[in-house]
Amino acid sequence: MVYLTRVEHFNAAHRLYNPSWSYEKNEAVFGKCANENWHGHNYELHVTIRGEVDEDTGFLFDAKKLSMLIEEHVLELLDHKNLNMDVPFLEGKMCSTENLAKGIWNQLEPHIPGHVALHCIKLYETPRIFVEYYGEQ
Amino acid sequence: MVYLTRVEHFNAAHRLYNPSWSYEKNEAVFGKCANENWHGHNYELHVTIRGEVDEDTGFLFDAKKLSMLIEEHVLELLDHKNLNMDVPFLEGKMCSTENLAKGIWNQLEPHIPGHVALHCIKLYETPRIFVEYYGEQ
Amino acid sequence: MVYLTRVEHFNAAHRLYNPSWSYEKNEAVFGKCANENWHGHNYELHVTIRGEVDEDTGFLFDAKKLSMLIEEHVLELLDHKNLNMDVPFLEGKMCSTENLAKGIWNQLEPHIPGHVALHCIKLYETPRIFVEYYGEQ
Amino acid sequence: MVYLTRVEHFNAAHRLYNPSWSYEKNEAVFGKCANENWHGHNYELHVTIRGEVDEDTGFLFDAKKLSMLIEEHVLELLDHKNLNMDVPFLEGKMCSTENLAKGIWNQLEPHIPGHVALHCIKLYETPRIFVEYYGEQ
Amino acid sequence: MVYLTRVEHFNAAHRLYNPSWSYEKNEAVFGKCANENWHGHNYELHVTIRGEVDEDTGFLFDAKKLSMLIEEHVLELLDHKNLNMDVPFLEGKMCSTENLAKGIWNQLEPHIPGHVALHCIKLYETPRIFVEYYGEQ
Amino acid sequence: MVYLTRVEHFNAAHRLYNPSWSYEKNEAVFGKCANENWHGHNYELHVTIRGEVDEDTGFLFDAKKLSMLIEEHVLELLDHKNLNMDVPFLEGKMCSTENLAKGIWNQLEPHIPGHVALHCIKLYETPRIFVEYYGEQ
Repeated sequence: MVYLTRVEHFNAAHRLYNPSWSYEKNEAVFGKCANENWHGHNYELHVTIRGEVDEDTGFLFDAKKLSMLIEEHVLELLDHKNLNMDVPFLEGKMCSTENLAKGIWNQLEPHIPGHVALHCIKLYETPRIFVEYYGEQ
Repeated sequence: MVYLTRVEHFNAAHRLYNPSWSYEKNEAVFGKCANENWHGHNYELHVTIRGEVDEDTGFLFDAKKLSMLIEEHVLELLDHKNLNMDVPFLEGKMCSTENLAKGIWNQLEPHIPGHVALHCIKLYETPRIFVEYYGEQ
Repeated sequence: MVYLTRVEHFNAAHRLYNPSWSYEKNEAVFGKCANENWHGHNYELHVTIRGEVDEDTGFLFDAKKLSMLIEEHVLELLDHKNLNMDVPFLEGKMCSTENLAKGIWNQLEPHIPGHVALHCIKLYETPRIFVEYYGEQ
Repeated sequence: MVYLTRVEHFNAAHRLYNPSWSYEKNEAVFGKCANENWHGHNYELHVTIRGEVDEDTGFLFDAKKLSMLIEEHVLELLDHKNLNMDVPFLEGKMCSTENLAKGIWNQLEPHIPGHVALHCIKLYETPRIFVEYYGEQ
Repeated sequence: MVYLTRVEHFNAAHRLYNPSWSYEKNEAVFGKCANENWHGHNYELHVTIRGEVDEDTGFLFDAKKLSMLIEEHVLELLDHKNLNMDVPFLEGKMCSTENLAKGIWNQLEPHIPGHVALHCIKLYETPRIFVEYYGEQ
Repeated sequence: MVYLTRVEHFNAAHRLYNPSWSYEKNEAVFGKCANENWHGHNYELHVTIRGEVDEDTGFLFDAKKLSMLIEEHVLELLDHKNLNMDVPFLEGKMCSTENLAKGIWNQLEPHIPGHVALHCIKLYETPRIFVEYYGEQ
């Protein structure tokens, strides 16, 4: 059993704003993160899968193919997007790093081939704040 | 003569879009950077000053005071903002990293004390793209 | 269940010296780390908490509040200090990174709100040496 | 129970090539990684051990001694080597990062002193691809 | 006048060996870098250009186009290659980082559009060793 | 003409304190950096030399020999030391990063071989504060 991680990046705009709250409550809770004109981040995404090593290739899974899966099912939906406006899987949810990490898991998990398992989505919002999600309910 | 650099960060949304061009031309030139719903970045800012070392303090300039000058005259205007909509000194200009670096120079330079000189504004848009401006016309 | 990590820094002096040993034995075991005039480090601290995401905010816990808790209960006691002389919670203990990580856990854990749990203290002494503590006895 | 990690580096050449396959199949599966004239990497190696802290030293294990163990039993065999040609413990195996991480575990584990346990071998092939191995069969 | 830098990566094998010297002299001068079975590196390449900002785009030069120029004229020739065997522009030269940086300058410079100038090739052989070349004879 | 940089590290304790001032003035100017019990840093040192490439070796200068020169003439004097108490070349000077960078230049410059020139000492006190000195009076 080994774990393989691929690191990717995307840039996006977002805003922390709960539409069921008043503007004032949003300001009080989210501060400048609630700015109605948005702000944004360079997100760094670590996708970790686990499983057995294939003897013929020495691979758990081809890192280039993993990158292509992430590109197709995650980055296409998020890179250079507005997380609040452009991303179907975040609709109706707060655009926090926590929810984004869980959403990325749900997007990617069905496309991971059966002989490996998705293990962790680690998402840096800034170099000093990051979230990890292991698919635990 | 020594050079002192202070590194700071800010997060902002922006969009590359020339309003005097058609939507199609903007798409052709700027691609997904033209997304009308914005995207954003964690900008990393390096401010370098130069001058003589003060014998009593051993300082060119107190790095904490330099940080406070950057906070007051630059980060206050840029952090968690929309560069196209919220930043007076970028009004009427393309919100590129090049123009942002030059704008930061112009904001900061008048507030640098006389015994030191502003030497360089270095601005990372992503970990793989950065701009340097030395005040050269 | 998600995990949220906040990265902080502090600078401190310390020395590895067991007062119940001879000077020679300290030299033999700790080498230049035993220097009687101290040396120091830029410590990088990763604090990880875990729990459920709040639906209204999208947060496990507000990263800014986590930063303030760390500032108040950890950094205030350690930043720009001498770990051997200035830090009550290390009194009578060797000032190793291992003991420092455990001490930081004990300082911070009582102040973590009940709906989340402290998960890990990760502490870099240098970019190439770090310790993790999960509260395991 | 604490975990201590030491980070080391080595540079090596390698090639992904299964000699029981045709040249064409190797090209199809491994692409430019199959280049018959080799390519190479700066590998970054994280070795993590776990155990109890010694009260007299404050150490789980002396990080300098851990570094010397890694130097002697791992880096001596890998640094500035050709992984396919020069490394006995990889003979007959594909020179993937997965197999390299497992091989490093097997080289190092017998030399870890009894009061601590080897916990994880983490190996970066590039800054964006890394493998972790915990000794799990 | 601004400076724009694009960071790229490539992996390659190489060996330091002067064929006009004896094996023993090569060993004495280059040590393990002379290993006849090669070793390799993850090279990090910074390409800096300078010039005036275009008012319509806000760009010195489109960073994506710069990346494509580097890909076509540099990375295609170097990535996953053996620097001693596969690279025409290094033929007859020692495969040092110094010569590699100069060779990259010579490859790239003719393809830089006339309104900007190539300013610097900065090349990391490891995170702790790098070379800069400004085209100075 | 090329430039070669070697990156090294050292750990040291220090304190910012001007003995010709009152305790109160020191507190006012240097704040917690004046702590009488010291604090410390992991300093990162970049030494850059410049000159012509030797045709036989492809080297400006052997990076390993440069590392040994830095080890002998700089790190031996600074690593795991108290900058205020243990370092002859800082005696009578404020232990600022500015003065430390200048002192390192003066220590190293006489030992750089004649066919190359010392170009720059770059010294990080923290990841966000660094000083550069080019030998300019």
